[in-house]
Amino acid sequence: MIRVGIVGGTGYTGVELLRLVCQHPEMELRVITSRKEAGQKVADLFPSLRGWVDLKFSDPAQAQLSECDLVFFATPNGVAMEQARELLDAGVRVIDLAADFRLKNVTEWESWYGMTHACPEWVDGAVYGLPEVNRDDIRSASLVANPGCYPTAVQLGFLPLVETGVVDLGHLIADAKSGVSGAGRKAEVPILFAEAGDNFKAYGVPGHRHLPEIRQGLTRAAGGRSVGLTFVPHLTPLIRGIHATLYARLTHPEADIQALFEARYANEPFVDIMPPGSHPETRSVRASNQCRIAVHRPQGGDMVVVLSVIDNLVKGAAGQAVHNANLMFDWPETLGLTQVPILP
Amino acid sequence: MIRVGIVGGTGYTGVELLRLVCQHPEMELRVITSRKEAGQKVADLFPSLRGWVDLKFSDPAQAQLSECDLVFFATPNGVAMEQARELLDAGVRVIDLAADFRLKNVTEWESWYGMTHACPEWVDGAVYGLPEVNRDDIRSASLVANPGCYPTAVQLGFLPLVETGVVDLGHLIADAKSGVSGAGRKAEVPILFAEAGDNFKAYGVPGHRHLPEIRQGLTRAAGGRSVGLTFVPHLTPLIRGIHATLYARLTHPEADIQALFEARYANEPFVDIMPPGSHPETRSVRASNQCRIAVHRPQGGDMVVVLSVIDNLVKGAAGQAVHNANLMFDWPETLGLTQVPILP
Amino acid sequence: MIRVGIVGGTGYTGVELLRLVCQHPEMELRVITSRKEAGQKVADLFPSLRGWVDLKFSDPAQAQLSECDLVFFATPNGVAMEQARELLDAGVRVIDLAADFRLKNVTEWESWYGMTHACPEWVDGAVYGLPEVNRDDIRSASLVANPGCYPTAVQLGFLPLVETGVVDLGHLIADAKSGVSGAGRKAEVPILFAEAGDNFKAYGVPGHRHLPEIRQGLTRAAGGRSVGLTFVPHLTPLIRGIHATLYARLTHPEADIQALFEARYANEPFVDIMPPGSHPETRSVRASNQCRIAVHRPQGGDMVVVLSVIDNLVKGAAGQAVHNANLMFDWPETLGLTQVPILP
Amino acid sequence: MIRVGIVGGTGYTGVELLRLVCQHPEMELRVITSRKEAGQKVADLFPSLRGWVDLKFSDPAQAQLSECDLVFFATPNGVAMEQARELLDAGVRVIDLAADFRLKNVTEWESWYGMTHACPEWVDGAVYGLPEVNRDDIRSASLVANPGCYPTAVQLGFLPLVETGVVDLGHLIADAKSGVSGAGRKAEVPILFAEAGDNFKAYGVPGHRHLPEIRQGLTRAAGGRSVGLTFVPHLTPLIRGIHATLYARLTHPEADIQALFEARYANEPFVDIMPPGSHPETRSVRASNQCRIAVHRPQGGDMVVVLSVIDNLVKGAAGQAVHNANLMFDWPETLGLTQVPILP
Repeated sequence: MIRVGIVGGTGYTGVELLRLVCQHPEMELRVITSRKEAGQKVADLFPSLRGWVDLKFSDPAQAQLSECDLVFFATPNGVAMEQARELLDAGVRVIDLAADFRLKNVTEWESWYGMTHACPEWVDGAVYGLPEVNRDDIRSASLVANPGCYPTAVQLGFLPLVETGVVDLGHLIADAKSGVSGAGRKAEVPILFAEAGDNFKAYGVPGHRHLPEIRQGLTRAAGGRSVGLTFVPHLTPLIRGIHATLYARLTHPEADIQALFEARYANEPFVDIMPPGSHPETRSVRASNQCRIAVHRPQGGDMVVVLSVIDNLVKGAAGQAVHNANLMFDWPETLGLTQVPILP
Repeated sequence: MIRVGIVGGTGYTGVELLRLVCQHPEMELRVITSRKEAGQKVADLFPSLRGWVDLKFSDPAQAQLSECDLVFFATPNGVAMEQARELLDAGVRVIDLAADFRLKNVTEWESWYGMTHACPEWVDGAVYGLPEVNRDDIRSASLVANPGCYPTAVQLGFLPLVETGVVDLGHLIADAKSGVSGAGRKAEVPILFAEAGDNFKAYGVPGHRHLPEIRQGLTRAAGGRSVGLTFVPHLTPLIRGIHATLYARLTHPEADIQALFEARYANEPFVDIMPPGSHPETRSVRASNQCRIAVHRPQGGDMVVVLSVIDNLVKGAAGQAVHNANLMFDWPETLGLTQVPILP
Repeated sequence: MIRVGIVGGTGYTGVELLRLVCQHPEMELRVITSRKEAGQKVADLFPSLRGWVDLKFSDPAQAQLSECDLVFFATPNGVAMEQARELLDAGVRVIDLAADFRLKNVTEWESWYGMTHACPEWVDGAVYGLPEVNRDDIRSASLVANPGCYPTAVQLGFLPLVETGVVDLGHLIADAKSGVSGAGRKAEVPILFAEAGDNFKAYGVPGHRHLPEIRQGLTRAAGGRSVGLTFVPHLTPLIRGIHATLYARLTHPEADIQALFEARYANEPFVDIMPPGSHPETRSVRASNQCRIAVHRPQGGDMVVVLSVIDNLVKGAAGQAVHNANLMFDWPETLGLTQVPILP
Repeated sequence: MIRVGIVGGTGYTGVELLRLVCQHPEMELRVITSRKEAGQKVADLFPSLRGWVDLKFSDPAQAQLSECDLVFFATPNGVAMEQARELLDAGVRVIDLAADFRLKNVTEWESWYGMTHACPEWVDGAVYGLPEVNRDDIRSASLVANPGCYPTAVQLGFLPLVETGVVDLGHLIADAKSGVSGAGRKAEVPILFAEAGDNFKAYGVPGHRHLPEIRQGLTRAAGGRSVGLTFVPHLTPLIRGIHATLYARLTHPEADIQALFEARYANEPFVDIMPPGSHPETRSVRASNQCRIAVHRPQGGDMVVVLSVIDNLVKGAAGQAVHNANLMFDWPETLGLTQVPILP
């Protein structure tokens, strides 16, 4: 049983992390901080947690985070880079669910996120927390940069193709669709029910922050070869879920794509390669840490179409963070993550 | 570990029951029958269960249901009354999630359900499976009639008022709203997405089958005094959830209604009386077996307004069935029912 | 052709008013003001109006509102009472879509709205703009107080019962459900898609601002007799639409309720009494100025159940405002309001 | 004023056609047929039309369709090819909203639609009713094959690129998302609210009937050069709307894509090229005949991304059919099609 702290925790990533942590058999939630909600009971803000979480939000300044074994940052971008160093120096292990430590190139990070990085010395040491790629490094990491939701769905769908080099790396396309919770629990007009409901739109076509993160991961998977990626995110009227539709042109048409995916993920507890001909639905992973993937080659041509679905708040955020914690503390990987998806 | 069978199981009540049973530490699912889907893998019909349920649907005729310790009927009305007798005679305990054994008055049942009852001799012996009322009888029951979704939400909301007789029993009003999954997984035009989406309507105002069921329960709670109830169900564009808004006129205005509710449900694991002034949301119980209730007396007048929310598929169906099973087999009441609600 | 100005117009009431005004054959939109959006093209904020509205929002201070024949206030509560006087003095006719002039009792208004009324001298002269009640007064009004959305649906549903005195006036119940656009186009967490979607809740049970407005109208309809009303609003996951379910106890059980409603609204262009046994859906009036009403007497008892549906943004706001304008300028009542409801 | 008949009309295309026809100043609806609903009032099936359409559905056999000037077929695939010939021989002009006459290659049609074509002799003479391409031929056509919903959105988005040959024609990608009404008003489980709600999925990836239709149109636009197209449709939880996201690789990187699109559609009343940087929303065209298109070239690379939105029931079906009728009868193209989109 380890002592766990959460910084932030009033957003959707936070409430989902609370749901998982309060059920995790090896985690004891000791402190959760929020400047804005300090003093309020967590279960008053999130009545779904009544009977599960008795803590109050505490003021960040007063919080005894350094007495924890593990601290999750479920904060906006730019917070962990300010506060993690002190915890790390005190020997606390840290998982940042935001983007502060995801990009290895600090200059690129500063350009996409529009801030000066406050903790560049930890960027190299931070481990990118995609277990299907970095399992071993995560085990020993002090600081884990939990991947973004789109990057999780897109990388898992492209990895087998890119690692084996069977497709044209110069013209990958990721057409991704996200539920509205992906935009966070923020008071903003475009994500109101009456704006986002019964409506569909692309956004960020000129450039989205998850583009460099995906490109970094795929470039590494390609052994350093340059990767050309067009990434178009869309907002779709569902609460949870990401559906990534990926397009790549086969340069090795003889490849057995289905077999390649099955082999790549044969031992992965949270990646499920569906039978040929499948169309995975986002709800088939709702509220679970699963990623389901199907592979198509329409009309037997040279275009591969990969369909990859996750729950953006679980495999795309809080669940993956708990998976990383399981690795860091040498517990079974699926501990506390065996929830059956909710359907309907 | 008991051997469990499910008859039916291709509807929403069925898939929800599967989700709960496959996680229950004392239940081993041995057989699931479906005439229509016989031979198909359960996980092909419900991909959310991939990795959880390996069974195929089997033909009802061939199924070895009589070797089970417990059989759930997750079938349309009229099936359990045909098939339960043989199982009961063989010593199998039965929980019917449909309506066949809910009404004690067979004539009334036949009139509302439009069928001749095929098994009237078991009607008396069947125990109405609302644990908050019939806990002791359920423990020893051979046959449990699992309550309807509306009747669960409405009765739990009215019980403290009716049992104590502090309101006018002649003019109770239950204005109830249900998510669309309450109508079942049936190919019918009125519950298509493009019909029920962005739309709200009442239905069954002249008379709904849950009316006599609720009236029977409230009459019993009133010690046999006659109860007048107006029940208006509505279809609302959410997938899961029932919100019952109940109105009763206080005849004892000095009563402390909040205290009365808190006392009534003090020891109930699945009924949560919210603090004064609360407005429970359906999502605060989504995918969990919880019922949350708030009590109001607007402007201090003589009208009591009770707000009662459940997940129609859990506390209103499959979860309550598992709760009943826990009682029947003398396990802790919350065994396998500790899922945290999914929010958002 | 009259010159029309709109104050406000960046909310849902505003964009709906724009949709109607830009198609109205006798209205020429001359100016639309918004402090926040001054200088921006209307069609950039609302791309649905591209090709229809070429105006930019202008600064309220600079706007030449006083050169208009008619000015609509589509502003938050408290704005019209500050700005209408000057326009009225200049001979401009004004329709306020907010609540400033709806309640005749200024003290009551100040108590419910939490502000000091800035223009009490115009309260008496303002005409409550429910055409089905005040048609003649509206024709000659300088200042019309456009009714609230709930009050429109509820009053139209209760009027025939209250005016004829066939029900117990002391215990009326209005259980009303509104789509989320009724809460306005405001950046607030509770109306986010991921909060209000797949969720249902009551709100304001202890007291909602529309309660005194409805009570005032029903009291007047009752010839001044006291009216007891319990009003419970709910938020339901649809974009547009109000469904009011009304309960009243018959004191004259011999009354032919269906005939009574048909007679009351025989000549009303925007109130449609459905055939006996009907359950009107909100979508049957979507984007139109229609109110549809059905009347029930379940099991032939003494409880009358009235189902009343409107589009909260049309008959509950912008459409009713245009109807009032048609009366004020002596045009046919349905001019510019003949849109067919959008289904599905 | 011409006499109009509708065959079918109980589906979503039918009710939308009724909405438009009943408001069209030059059309008088004389007959609407439906085998299943014969004898029922149209307004009983679709209460939104109460007060607008007084007709009853009549039996196809008895219907006096041949006395009409124009007959719309709003029927499933395979009906018009059986019934149109007789009408055409009688001089009635026909618009088929289904697929019977869309493909010029009868063999290909029979292969995709799984039927023997019953009227191959009319395939050549039928004019494909995409006004932006075939305006002149439509004017004089006896039989118009109204395009499919996906083909409308996809072709309008690709046409300027393909006609000018500035992109690689061998690897076009159309990632399209449709609201659920696109699947029709059919009692089928996968389009139930509780199945399609809060869910997102691709379908038909191995091959969808609209693929050959789009390919035929683009091949013609390319002057007969071969076109390689990957088409992936998705089901998204909205009622109306199609969003097509199109990808093409520039072979002429010097081309000014924005200018090219603006020039191509400069005189088109129903195609709106948005300003650079735009992301059109489906709701910006809801319930209107508009198509809105935006063009992007992310990071200045060689990939063009086109975003194209329509209302699948209007520009993708009934509205386009009325547009075609306006051309056939030499009325202004926008007659009866000037509805402002409904937002929110």
